[in-house]
Amino acid sequence: MTNKKLKVGIVGGTGYTGVELLRLLSIHPSVVLTAITSRGEAGLPVADMFPSLRGYVDLMFTDPAKSNLDECDVVFFATPNGIAMQQTRELLAKGVRVIDLAADFRIKDIPTWEKWYGMAHACPDLVATAVYGLPELNRAAIKTAQLVANPGCYPTAVQLGFMPLLEAGVVDTSYLIADAKSGVSGAGRKAEVHSLFAEAGDNFKAYGVAGHRHLPEISQGLTGMAKSKVGFTFVPHLTPLIRGIHATLYCKLTKSTDLQALFEARYANERFVDVLPKGTHPETRSVRGSNICRIAVHQPQDSDVVVVLSVIDNLVKGAAGQAVQNMNIMFDLPENMGLEVVPLLP
Amino acid sequence: MTNKKLKVGIVGGTGYTGVELLRLLSIHPSVVLTAITSRGEAGLPVADMFPSLRGYVDLMFTDPAKSNLDECDVVFFATPNGIAMQQTRELLAKGVRVIDLAADFRIKDIPTWEKWYGMAHACPDLVATAVYGLPELNRAAIKTAQLVANPGCYPTAVQLGFMPLLEAGVVDTSYLIADAKSGVSGAGRKAEVHSLFAEAGDNFKAYGVAGHRHLPEISQGLTGMAKSKVGFTFVPHLTPLIRGIHATLYCKLTKSTDLQALFEARYANERFVDVLPKGTHPETRSVRGSNICRIAVHQPQDSDVVVVLSVIDNLVKGAAGQAVQNMNIMFDLPENMGLEVVPLLP
Amino acid sequence: MTNKKLKVGIVGGTGYTGVELLRLLSIHPSVVLTAITSRGEAGLPVADMFPSLRGYVDLMFTDPAKSNLDECDVVFFATPNGIAMQQTRELLAKGVRVIDLAADFRIKDIPTWEKWYGMAHACPDLVATAVYGLPELNRAAIKTAQLVANPGCYPTAVQLGFMPLLEAGVVDTSYLIADAKSGVSGAGRKAEVHSLFAEAGDNFKAYGVAGHRHLPEISQGLTGMAKSKVGFTFVPHLTPLIRGIHATLYCKLTKSTDLQALFEARYANERFVDVLPKGTHPETRSVRGSNICRIAVHQPQDSDVVVVLSVIDNLVKGAAGQAVQNMNIMFDLPENMGLEVVPLLP
Amino acid sequence: MTNKKLKVGIVGGTGYTGVELLRLLSIHPSVVLTAITSRGEAGLPVADMFPSLRGYVDLMFTDPAKSNLDECDVVFFATPNGIAMQQTRELLAKGVRVIDLAADFRIKDIPTWEKWYGMAHACPDLVATAVYGLPELNRAAIKTAQLVANPGCYPTAVQLGFMPLLEAGVVDTSYLIADAKSGVSGAGRKAEVHSLFAEAGDNFKAYGVAGHRHLPEISQGLTGMAKSKVGFTFVPHLTPLIRGIHATLYCKLTKSTDLQALFEARYANERFVDVLPKGTHPETRSVRGSNICRIAVHQPQDSDVVVVLSVIDNLVKGAAGQAVQNMNIMFDLPENMGLEVVPLLP
Repeated sequence: MTNKKLKVGIVGGTGYTGVELLRLLSIHPSVVLTAITSRGEAGLPVADMFPSLRGYVDLMFTDPAKSNLDECDVVFFATPNGIAMQQTRELLAKGVRVIDLAADFRIKDIPTWEKWYGMAHACPDLVATAVYGLPELNRAAIKTAQLVANPGCYPTAVQLGFMPLLEAGVVDTSYLIADAKSGVSGAGRKAEVHSLFAEAGDNFKAYGVAGHRHLPEISQGLTGMAKSKVGFTFVPHLTPLIRGIHATLYCKLTKSTDLQALFEARYANERFVDVLPKGTHPETRSVRGSNICRIAVHQPQDSDVVVVLSVIDNLVKGAAGQAVQNMNIMFDLPENMGLEVVPLLP
Repeated sequence: MTNKKLKVGIVGGTGYTGVELLRLLSIHPSVVLTAITSRGEAGLPVADMFPSLRGYVDLMFTDPAKSNLDECDVVFFATPNGIAMQQTRELLAKGVRVIDLAADFRIKDIPTWEKWYGMAHACPDLVATAVYGLPELNRAAIKTAQLVANPGCYPTAVQLGFMPLLEAGVVDTSYLIADAKSGVSGAGRKAEVHSLFAEAGDNFKAYGVAGHRHLPEISQGLTGMAKSKVGFTFVPHLTPLIRGIHATLYCKLTKSTDLQALFEARYANERFVDVLPKGTHPETRSVRGSNICRIAVHQPQDSDVVVVLSVIDNLVKGAAGQAVQNMNIMFDLPENMGLEVVPLLP
Repeated sequence: MTNKKLKVGIVGGTGYTGVELLRLLSIHPSVVLTAITSRGEAGLPVADMFPSLRGYVDLMFTDPAKSNLDECDVVFFATPNGIAMQQTRELLAKGVRVIDLAADFRIKDIPTWEKWYGMAHACPDLVATAVYGLPELNRAAIKTAQLVANPGCYPTAVQLGFMPLLEAGVVDTSYLIADAKSGVSGAGRKAEVHSLFAEAGDNFKAYGVAGHRHLPEISQGLTGMAKSKVGFTFVPHLTPLIRGIHATLYCKLTKSTDLQALFEARYANERFVDVLPKGTHPETRSVRGSNICRIAVHQPQDSDVVVVLSVIDNLVKGAAGQAVQNMNIMFDLPENMGLEVVPLLP
Repeated sequence: MTNKKLKVGIVGGTGYTGVELLRLLSIHPSVVLTAITSRGEAGLPVADMFPSLRGYVDLMFTDPAKSNLDECDVVFFATPNGIAMQQTRELLAKGVRVIDLAADFRIKDIPTWEKWYGMAHACPDLVATAVYGLPELNRAAIKTAQLVANPGCYPTAVQLGFMPLLEAGVVDTSYLIADAKSGVSGAGRKAEVHSLFAEAGDNFKAYGVAGHRHLPEISQGLTGMAKSKVGFTFVPHLTPLIRGIHATLYCKLTKSTDLQALFEARYANERFVDVLPKGTHPETRSVRGSNICRIAVHQPQDSDVVVVLSVIDNLVKGAAGQAVQNMNIMFDLPENMGLEVVPLLP
């Protein structure tokens, strides 16, 4: 850890993960915000777009072409899929470390990535070197990574919920189910009819049952934990929350296990995973605005069915907060620096 | 009243006023839905876009150019501003009566209209013949109108609230205030960032304080009721409702008046205006899905300040329901036909 | 079917199922509302409590002791659990048919009922004669029933989703999962902290994972359909909707089956079950205010996992609407009479 | 300012202002939470009731009778009205400074207080010594106060909006209007039907038009600023927000004034009042979770009508945050210590 503050750049600061990075980084004690780029909004003060940042962020959006990103110690990509892979090689070459909040570097198998994301990958060799930024799984590798692929929101909630079970080898991995519910901010700050208040409000629906992009990402992770191919069913739902993911996980126990003890032991030293007492139910609002994942594990009616309940704030532990956590690890800062924001309840 | 069912066409059926017209007309006993046009969605079954209509509406959207609108008895325009004025003359010429739910024919003064709507008017002569479709004000004229300008949502709630006071001449017309709050569906089914769930949800704001397009429409109406120029301040707000407008009106009494009696007398024979008992507060949900305007009038602390509370469902009495009410009047049907939908509460 | 209108009584009209019964029955062409009782609110006009009913319901709440329930043709109990069983015998004895919207007569096994509901049952003999009022399952028996146990909200959505699969015997009945999400009105119109807007709003949580009262009711139904004991896991969740239940069902196919055809055939003649096209996702709002259950069936990634999505309005098909449907069947009225309310969207 | 941390007690920590105090104080660098009392919940860990505080607050609720409040440097009362006045004298006598978040000490005229709050006041002499804790008005007096009456939520938003105008004497003080809208958390964490999600959700209504307890509090403040009796109309509304107040203020200009300059000058040195650029509209979410009041001032259509828009988070600047701000002033800490929480948007 050095005394010098980190110079931090953000590419694509106009979406929800962008403004969330700014919320967290603007009061991070070891960070100097150096550049925030946006092609469309160059010249606009950031706080004019996000008045919540008035008094905290004085920067203007700058044109990516004219920005000083290469002077940064670390650059976050808060861009749509397919952007980071165009610009990462150049930044890495200049010694800038990169954290991508999009999906460009998450999936190791390039054909799989190309199938689900519908484009050719620009730099498969970098995918190979990228570290999947789930600290509770990959902390050591993140420490020295030049390029971190920040996990998706659903994948964070689902993988943290299954991890203790799969690592311990106590469940049937051929039939894992994740019934996940997300707030609408997960769809991003994009003008789309289905995300309108009058469409998504007072409404609940599943979507993407035939296949969602987070399915291969989660499958890859679960396979790694199980050390074998898994059978995985993933059903995402849209729920009228602004923020929050609730993943309800189902699997069958194959070996009698004290589940509460298993989970508590696995996460005993994890600042940002909180295993709740037996018999309780985590609420999404209990992590609103914070980097914490809260988990409860149940075995209803003493059957062999395990039900895991896992909640995160999709914009924090599911995106910007986890990215800052990764940055802290990469630069040898205290892992929780700038992340001790008490959840906002109610 | 004839036994023959009315043939009804809708131009622009893909927005919220369109689907609301379909909800009401699909079970209207004297209506046959004949054509629903949409340039963008021609060929799509209406119920594929709005599954709520499955089993009630079998029509497909048709291309306006190929539609049979001129066979209709009446055509509703549920289009953006500036469309109806392009097509109305031809329909009228064929004997089709027209009800425009947009603003094209609401404002008599053409320069005023052109200033607020930012375009040249295509048919000022038709504006002169159009009847402003507020039945409680203009019932007789609506009966024989060939072209009805259906009022805006805010203008309906505000004018019904001020009408008894202005007609009776008991308040200071130089300083009328309408502090109005609308649900987000008032912005239409348009993909715009400020209407996203994650933007408009759990949020409240004023907008258009410098000037909103409903200001000249309301001013014109209030001036007519007062029979003199009025001073009018209008502040609209966006509130996290799907449906509903609540207008809170302020003015000063110039003559001692039994306000409760005044309002009850004025609306005694109006099926769709409900004057609430003294001392009560109407809720927007008490009219959800229905064509009713509920009004309460207060004189707090026995001062000379009058506070009127007026609620409507912006998509029903503020748009589609009032349009159907106008249709019923125009075709000599019972005014409430098809409109006896009990409000949905909760 | 007779020309005479049915005289209808409602016991406990102050909750959400009560006001919903009133919304539907007040415009039902063959019904005369005869009595609405409430111990606490006797003497209060119903429309003072529920202003949405102004102009539709003129009755006052009456004291149960002084009411004329025994003059009714049918009495609905919209009361907390444990009330109907105290009063039903007397009404039946007078020839009044009874529809209980609470749980008193739903579970045939008395010890099971007493365990889950925490009280002794007052009339086990009547439970034996009661017909479980799921018309799609029990229509013939409902026709002649004197006493109908109207199903719970979750049980309706879940059973209609599993029914075609279980009756056809094509899935593994040892491991059935229902991940169900309910709007907050499901908790009733009771002053409880966890149902406050500031508690349930912008929040999502599971509850009752260890055991929910609808579990034995659903298990009983699924067992009947499967004609053998089933393994059933039920996880209910609270979601910030006012109305609506979305049940996501998981099971494993044991026999290659055209699921879409199976569901369409099973519900071909059911007015109130709508099987959606393949690949679609029902939204809760597409049934808002209506008695329809919409269902889609998926087999993601062509695995052997079946995912059924089933939505209802918990207050209509999940309570009051289904009760009216049962009444129509019992009295030989058209099954959809008074129930053709187009869903309110948006 | 001393190095020693302040020992802080909270009476009544189970409501929303209580949990909000805990959110802010648990990470305040100069505070040690010493006691949190609750008669009903004694023995319960605070974080069991509010899981958002897990990891931040280790205290249990203690019985007021057995608590060590008199060892504290300062005690906050987050209790219903009428409690603080019973206990304050004893604490003051022991040298404990008191900040009351309820209304017991806000109104100087005892008969007025007794009329609006419906009880006899227990200690009129203490009311005389209490300082009204609006820092932007009373900073100097707060510094030395032993007893601070923390303002109500509406009064904070309304008074900060009118203050520059009244102090400058540029508006007609005989006709001041505040049309105010509050989120539901303003009603507190009390089990009441009208605050249920299914009642307050998707609904908007005025309430208390005949008279609300915040009316005399605001009138007192406005009179002080205007140095003469004012005519004031106050209409509060309930809006489906969790947090947030939006006050829309109306008055007439009596003297040509550069309103933007007036407001900017008045609040130039105020950390927690942010005057927005001309022509803008503050959103409640732009202050969500923060102690900031954002204000915009308009003069629509260049008339003499002034419209002020003022937003706060009712639980922060409208309650707990302002209380902490007062504590900081009283104990010579930096006024913003512990209060630099970036608003949570979206």
